[in-house]
Amino acid sequence: MRLLERHRSLIVEGLRDALAGETSLRRILRVHVGIEDEQGQPVDRLGKLLRPALVLFVADELGADPKRSSHAAVGLELIHNFSLIHDDIQDRDRTRRGRPTVWVRHGVPEAINAGDLMHAIAVSTALKHSPDAAGLLLQATDTMIEGQSLDLDFERRPVDIDEYLTMIDRKTGALLRCAFELGGLCAGVEADVREKLRRLGHEIGRAFQIHDDLLGIWGDGDVVGKPQGSDIRRRKKSFPVAVGFERADGADRERLERTYAGSDDVGDDVVDWVVDLLGRLGVRDEGERRVRGHLDAARAGLQEIPFSDEGRAQMNELIEYLARREK
Amino acid sequence: MRLLERHRSLIVEGLRDALAGETSLRRILRVHVGIEDEQGQPVDRLGKLLRPALVLFVADELGADPKRSSHAAVGLELIHNFSLIHDDIQDRDRTRRGRPTVWVRHGVPEAINAGDLMHAIAVSTALKHSPDAAGLLLQATDTMIEGQSLDLDFERRPVDIDEYLTMIDRKTGALLRCAFELGGLCAGVEADVREKLRRLGHEIGRAFQIHDDLLGIWGDGDVVGKPQGSDIRRRKKSFPVAVGFERADGADRERLERTYAGSDDVGDDVVDWVVDLLGRLGVRDEGERRVRGHLDAARAGLQEIPFSDEGRAQMNELIEYLARREK
Repeated sequence: MRLLERHRSLIVEGLRDALAGETSLRRILRVHVGIEDEQGQPVDRLGKLLRPALVLFVADELGADPKRSSHAAVGLELIHNFSLIHDDIQDRDRTRRGRPTVWVRHGVPEAINAGDLMHAIAVSTALKHSPDAAGLLLQATDTMIEGQSLDLDFERRPVDIDEYLTMIDRKTGALLRCAFELGGLCAGVEADVREKLRRLGHEIGRAFQIHDDLLGIWGDGDVVGKPQGSDIRRRKKSFPVAVGFERADGADRERLERTYAGSDDVGDDVVDWVVDLLGRLGVRDEGERRVRGHLDAARAGLQEIPFSDEGRAQMNELIEYLARREK
Repeated sequence: MRLLERHRSLIVEGLRDALAGETSLRRILRVHVGIEDEQGQPVDRLGKLLRPALVLFVADELGADPKRSSHAAVGLELIHNFSLIHDDIQDRDRTRRGRPTVWVRHGVPEAINAGDLMHAIAVSTALKHSPDAAGLLLQATDTMIEGQSLDLDFERRPVDIDEYLTMIDRKTGALLRCAFELGGLCAGVEADVREKLRRLGHEIGRAFQIHDDLLGIWGDGDVVGKPQGSDIRRRKKSFPVAVGFERADGADRERLERTYAGSDDVGDDVVDWVVDLLGRLGVRDEGERRVRGHLDAARAGLQEIPFSDEGRAQMNELIEYLARREK
């Protein structure tokens, strides 16, 4: 996709610079982000680099020099990666991007260090752009961590839709909004454009997360890279489950509560029952309706931001992709 | 002690400001630093606050307004506290300052979040002073985390004295040096004074840590707050053990290696044997000699820094205390 490719080499170069150094901890960070293999050879196993691509896209479209903005973009990508390393410990996830997670390979204590170092390097990198970029990034990081804490709290109780949305606006929304705001900051735009960028990031973030949650239950296991219904198996209180809790009643509601309060393994029959129940309750339709709503709002908001025609086309392409993607 | 009391109320006030907010994670942070009890009541269960006291002492002595410098001091104290929260998870320590550690009370995942949030708030706070203060603090944080990683690596192999000193210069020395440098930065001193402050921080940091390590083996259990020989029981490769590894030979060396490579519980008889061996090898004397050497160097370095006579007296009082303290 053009938007993702536009400044990719600049971002990769910035990641290599930020994570340079011959300590074993820095090597772990380079392997984690996918710029080096376990033998120390340079590779390109990076992900989509969505967040830094958005920073540089917005900065470039609004008149900033992408090269001068790259520290802000790279700082954001490193914060995202620090959160992944610590998330994987918290969720006991054993693989990410098809590779063993840091805690699996190096143990929990060293994985905590790896995340901590990534966090410090992230802010140092953003600070090379400007104190304002570092400040904005730290605010988003604060919000993201509060969201992560809320998500942990959800493991212990039923959750309604509003609570769920508050949580994802923090846990995953904060960094996406930050991508748009950082781009605006790099370009030195006025407060009203900053606010419009923030709104656009909000709508795209919501669509992205709800779509992700639908894939976690109805996604094709082979394409998504984890077994179908895996979010049910791990009792994740994702969007479909929050809707399910609001809509179910009687025996269904009781069984749903019992299922999500339990601690024993969730069997195939229970997974099938939950998928069937959520289907009967119209949860998937509700989710798809909301994704479309947020993407429509994103398209409308996009019109108000002074991007070039080509830039608007590239952003629309990204929005289409987010609505369609299967993993 | 006068140096520690001099700006204490300013630091406590700054900590309250930095950690304000009604989320459950922020409450955990306030309880951890000791400004609030579990019921949400304000208390003063704070520690010595050595590092921020040093920042404000140096800043004040060299002509800065302590009030204007407090964000830098508080940022440093918060970094120290973030590292304690994560250290306690890594070392499986169950109590700190007589209270259950964060992971014991709230679980490992939430304790990881708590440390992460403390880290972000720390840098935000320092950034309120200046980008340079935040940059210096981030550098010290980076070094500290690398030292922590080295310390974990030491759990797996014998360690010599030089390696040990490299590790503590990073793990605990970095933040102490940073305290002196931040004070100088707040006062806007020239590079040569900054370097002298850094040296002073280095000598004091070394003395502090080696003394601590001696207490971990020969300290009076009741005074130190943990059983005598506790560092042996947990196979900590502290200074005395590094000296022991360098000096022991034959059967002693073999048994020492076996003891520190093992994973079963270290019994009382083994603890007694290690204490006896380290005594025979003159390790305690070597440690005390080094502590005295670093404190002498600190006293000499102190003469070259343009503190007031009263300030010099207060710093000498701290140095005497560090040489004498029993916990």
